[in-house]
Amino acid sequence: MKNFNEHNITAAVQARVANATSPRIREISDSLVRHLHTFLREVRPTEAEWAAGIDFLTRTGQMCSATRQEFILFSDTLGASMLVDAINHPGGDGATETTVLGPFYVQGAPEFPLGADISEGLAGDRLLIEGNVKNTAGEPIGGATIDIWHSDPDGYYDVQGPADAPLNMRGRLHADAAGNFWCRTIVPAPYPIPNDGPVGQMLEHQGRHPYRPAHVHFMIAADGYETLTTHVFLSHSPYLDSDVVFGVKDSLIHPLEKLPAGTSPGGHPINQPIDLMRYNFVLSKQRK
Amino acid sequence: MKNFNEHNITAAVQARVANATSPRIREISDSLVRHLHTFLREVRPTEAEWAAGIDFLTRTGQMCSATRQEFILFSDTLGASMLVDAINHPGGDGATETTVLGPFYVQGAPEFPLGADISEGLAGDRLLIEGNVKNTAGEPIGGATIDIWHSDPDGYYDVQGPADAPLNMRGRLHADAAGNFWCRTIVPAPYPIPNDGPVGQMLEHQGRHPYRPAHVHFMIAADGYETLTTHVFLSHSPYLDSDVVFGVKDSLIHPLEKLPAGTSPGGHPINQPIDLMRYNFVLSKQRK
Repeated sequence: MKNFNEHNITAAVQARVANATSPRIREISDSLVRHLHTFLREVRPTEAEWAAGIDFLTRTGQMCSATRQEFILFSDTLGASMLVDAINHPGGDGATETTVLGPFYVQGAPEFPLGADISEGLAGDRLLIEGNVKNTAGEPIGGATIDIWHSDPDGYYDVQGPADAPLNMRGRLHADAAGNFWCRTIVPAPYPIPNDGPVGQMLEHQGRHPYRPAHVHFMIAADGYETLTTHVFLSHSPYLDSDVVFGVKDSLIHPLEKLPAGTSPGGHPINQPIDLMRYNFVLSKQRK
Repeated sequence: MKNFNEHNITAAVQARVANATSPRIREISDSLVRHLHTFLREVRPTEAEWAAGIDFLTRTGQMCSATRQEFILFSDTLGASMLVDAINHPGGDGATETTVLGPFYVQGAPEFPLGADISEGLAGDRLLIEGNVKNTAGEPIGGATIDIWHSDPDGYYDVQGPADAPLNMRGRLHADAAGNFWCRTIVPAPYPIPNDGPVGQMLEHQGRHPYRPAHVHFMIAADGYETLTTHVFLSHSPYLDSDVVFGVKDSLIHPLEKLPAGTSPGGHPINQPIDLMRYNFVLSKQRK
């Protein structure tokens, strides 16, 4: 096979991937080639434009590090992450709605006992999080593992600080036998996604702001259930209608409640006034 | 805008890029989003598959260096580079056909006088290259700049050696007033594209070999003409029908001629038997 032109090259590349080592790799390769070529035929890039695209992808990869994932930002800001999320979690079964993982999840976050201050004493408005984990039948999921992470009042995550800074505003809890969990931390702020790299340049050229509304990330896992990856968005936050990564759903927007000193709704002592986020999570039974 | 699902997210992202800073950026962004989402809806990746895709792109970027361009290999092996080439150089005007630039072009290659040995004395079968540069009206293009680069007899380019190795098998010549150029070097070999990175893994999973037929790269530039980026493929080489980057065209396949000691067809003295590559190049007038 040779003498390829605009009209015959796509079939030639499809033929070349027809002997892939698995049907799934063949299916993905074939689809990728067709849609990539359709995009190119539609856009008709000049050679300089295609070189700029190659350079963009190269710089995006090279911006990635242990604490920065620029290709996740690229996927998030093009709506690809939310589309993959929607395909995998169509909802409708009564479980808590899902949203993007985002680039700031860290495996192996520190474990905390229930009630601990996962901000490790950082300055900021104090926040009490009280949650509950149930299944779609309304039964509590005792012992569920809850990963929580969020930004500081300036909109930065721990991993955006110096490389040797400790992890904070990030922790793993285990629900009690009734499926309840609680911890203390500080109120997060809206923030721009990291925009000093290629994705920031893309947003600027696309005439878009880089902001996300204030939110707390939750990843909740338990044996026999689909792992839930979601956020709770603060209802007073700006950008709820223009989240740069398209992650907001009405069911995930929740008000903070101002509590006076005393006892919280979950029965925990409060020494001074504090903001409360109280949200109940519902997990789907594991598929297949 | 919120509450995005599989059915409404594409329009939402399209709306978000509608205020791009230029009509071209809007057009490219809009098309990219539509085709990326169509690919995802068709393939329906699991979250693990999409994470593997993000990881592949990240590793592809991180494999790139001053002398390795893994994203060009990705574009080349998916036929995207040849498609962009075909879109930009539809041919049919009598000019020499074009093919991919490839990842081994280096700006600022050493300049050589006509007749020099651009291999810098490397071991290998000696090759005399004699060429001529004309326009589509058959007029010589005196003074045209000719960049030439090729692999060694083991299939490696200079830049694939140690970082401090000198550039060789690579040079810039200037045609004489009659449009003629000539130089000496060694006969290149077929070779696998660099396959110790993500693109090599992709080819393996796709059940493809990584080879290119033996060829010499030419980039020929002159004021008032479209720069010609092409190869001359050696007609005795394997892989002419299965070039991993889809670059072969019949008009670019050319035999080497065995010359005895004496005088070459171009009138140059030959001290010992040598292989001759004699090819005449035709440039198109610059567009617009």
